[in-house]
Amino acid sequence: MAVKKLPTVILRAGEDRRVRGGHPWAFSNEILMDADAKAIPVGSLATLRAPGGEALGVCTFNPHSLIAARLLSTNPEAQADALFFGRILTRAAALRDRLVGVPYYRLIHAEADGIPGVIIDRFGDAFVVQVNTAGMDALTPVLLEALEAEFSPTTIILKNDSPVRELEGLKREVVVAKGEAGSIELIENDARFVADLAEGQKTGWFYDQRDNRRFMAGLAKDARVLDAYCYSGGFGVLAAKRGAKSVVCLDRSQPALNAAQRAAALNEVDKIVSFQKGEVFETLEKEKPRSYEVVICDPPAFVKSRKDLKTGAQGYRKLVRLAAPLVTRGGFFFVASCSHLVDPPLFAEQVRRGLRDAQRNGRILLSSGAALDHPVHPSLPETAYLKAMVLQLD
Amino acid sequence: MAVKKLPTVILRAGEDRRVRGGHPWAFSNEILMDADAKAIPVGSLATLRAPGGEALGVCTFNPHSLIAARLLSTNPEAQADALFFGRILTRAAALRDRLVGVPYYRLIHAEADGIPGVIIDRFGDAFVVQVNTAGMDALTPVLLEALEAEFSPTTIILKNDSPVRELEGLKREVVVAKGEAGSIELIENDARFVADLAEGQKTGWFYDQRDNRRFMAGLAKDARVLDAYCYSGGFGVLAAKRGAKSVVCLDRSQPALNAAQRAAALNEVDKIVSFQKGEVFETLEKEKPRSYEVVICDPPAFVKSRKDLKTGAQGYRKLVRLAAPLVTRGGFFFVASCSHLVDPPLFAEQVRRGLRDAQRNGRILLSSGAALDHPVHPSLPETAYLKAMVLQLD
Repeated sequence: MAVKKLPTVILRAGEDRRVRGGHPWAFSNEILMDADAKAIPVGSLATLRAPGGEALGVCTFNPHSLIAARLLSTNPEAQADALFFGRILTRAAALRDRLVGVPYYRLIHAEADGIPGVIIDRFGDAFVVQVNTAGMDALTPVLLEALEAEFSPTTIILKNDSPVRELEGLKREVVVAKGEAGSIELIENDARFVADLAEGQKTGWFYDQRDNRRFMAGLAKDARVLDAYCYSGGFGVLAAKRGAKSVVCLDRSQPALNAAQRAAALNEVDKIVSFQKGEVFETLEKEKPRSYEVVICDPPAFVKSRKDLKTGAQGYRKLVRLAAPLVTRGGFFFVASCSHLVDPPLFAEQVRRGLRDAQRNGRILLSSGAALDHPVHPSLPETAYLKAMVLQLD
Repeated sequence: MAVKKLPTVILRAGEDRRVRGGHPWAFSNEILMDADAKAIPVGSLATLRAPGGEALGVCTFNPHSLIAARLLSTNPEAQADALFFGRILTRAAALRDRLVGVPYYRLIHAEADGIPGVIIDRFGDAFVVQVNTAGMDALTPVLLEALEAEFSPTTIILKNDSPVRELEGLKREVVVAKGEAGSIELIENDARFVADLAEGQKTGWFYDQRDNRRFMAGLAKDARVLDAYCYSGGFGVLAAKRGAKSVVCLDRSQPALNAAQRAAALNEVDKIVSFQKGEVFETLEKEKPRSYEVVICDPPAFVKSRKDLKTGAQGYRKLVRLAAPLVTRGGFFFVASCSHLVDPPLFAEQVRRGLRDAQRNGRILLSSGAALDHPVHPSLPETAYLKAMVLQLD
């Protein structure tokens, strides 16, 4: 393939320091937005250059986005071809095969795995791809070529329905690029679950709680367990499989409860798990105090934008206030937040306040995050969006 | 036992809010230090009262300490007797027996377990107690009575040699309260180790890295492993037992290396583990790049006081700069900080800078803390002193 000369994007004076320090982004106000830069088509590959002209690497470029340049490689000669993405996929899969052991995992976690703004979740031979930048949207055919070469997938879904695509001027859509959409079986923590890859939330399954689910299931032996916001049963069904006396799976969504119910049947714990359709806050308020040895609350993001921060953060406090009373003395309480705007100290403070409101004391046994297949780029600590906390309550 | 009326300690106007919110401390400037308060003997039990006179609980009191009042109970009628501490020990042991499974663990982790300023590490029938406040120092006989009733220990060591005791006006000393001091065997993660309860650092063993040691050992199969600051071999010997090809245990302390060597023999991995006496920074500088699939750095605290914060924090950066180059491409790097003044963002920033200095990229797989038997009081998040990070390096 002939090497095409890439257009050039130049950083303003003094603005090359962060990129030289290993950061994979340049913001639009850090880039010299002259007529040449503005003329570069949205989503193009470009050479990112220091103010003095030195090439710092190859980036994708979107002059209309706040994160205008996203580095693909610090090698200015890098070719963003199927071989390039193939090497990344090989490395990422080798790491997951080792850490997870079964082919059900997050294969690509964006910048941390070297593909900016792209998520790929693997379900055996089926792959769900989320592309959230104009640059990678333009490169999707190349990425799919690499995916094909590496894994010969039966199914590829482009789950491009995230609102963040609008910030990049991209359409929101779900495209079945190969095979058929629909419900699929997966394995997590030795248990079987079902996910709907096209209709479900995000990629259809939340692998990020895998390790937390295993930890909580380890506390569930002989326990009465409440799994609030159960979604497809990842916490509750595993707890039942690990010997819970009873499990209540609570969710407002009937499709989610149906998936959880199918998982319970697949794992032969359908006599242990019961299913309740309802709003979590309302349902918790009606429950009898101290009636569960284990209470699990894994809510959807309460804070979706900066303007929701205050009220959304108070949602976690309220959740703790309502859920903590249901935990028996000496029992265990799991609460998580996937709101990336709620940082760990803010989350911990809401938990503390909620416990005070509920007049319950206890101790934090574990403060954890997303599972190992959701790595974090060392320069982007703020992308570690998942906070989870496990407490023992007195 | 006749109920003695306790002296009263009164909070200043407006200063009762934090204690009412669940915080277990009142600082000296929050307390009405009138002649009556000043006359209360150092380390006395007292009733802590709100400005209006309402009793908020029973505390220990030291007017000369910054943390002047430490709550023992929010029940103003609570008796700080052997029964009181016995209930705490029973609950704490039940939690550890469940979480750890063998009687080798941190039994009491200060405020989080309801005994302010007291650490108790358990080694089977031997117990090492660290008492760091004047109030609990005065109550030591009662605490030991409870320990006796609960566990009938063969050995109790009062390892009261921490510098923080001086802030409370206490002597630094090591007292063998029962049995004999000396070296003892312990079990951690299915491996056998030795600790010297009276002569070793802190309580003789660092249980806080138990879960991190297990995680790293899981990555060590067939790997060449470097365990820098190996102390008594907790990381290195377990890695060897889990199938490492070779392990180098590096420490400046000969007694530590001797303990690690004994552990290697006890676990029949003495042909896999080698021992090197040396300063870590100097030794790392001489090592060949990319010669270990797994590099582990668990240094002592580089920051011991606020005035050391800047230079100490830079120590972590330097450590990463020297250690990261030794990791093979695709290998794993563990680095920890037990400096409580270095908060997680500062630690993460030093790691990022050290990686940049070393010109190594990678991804953070895990950001973790101390093991489960080191719980955190919800109102004292800053006491979560241990930060650990596991990266895969490219």
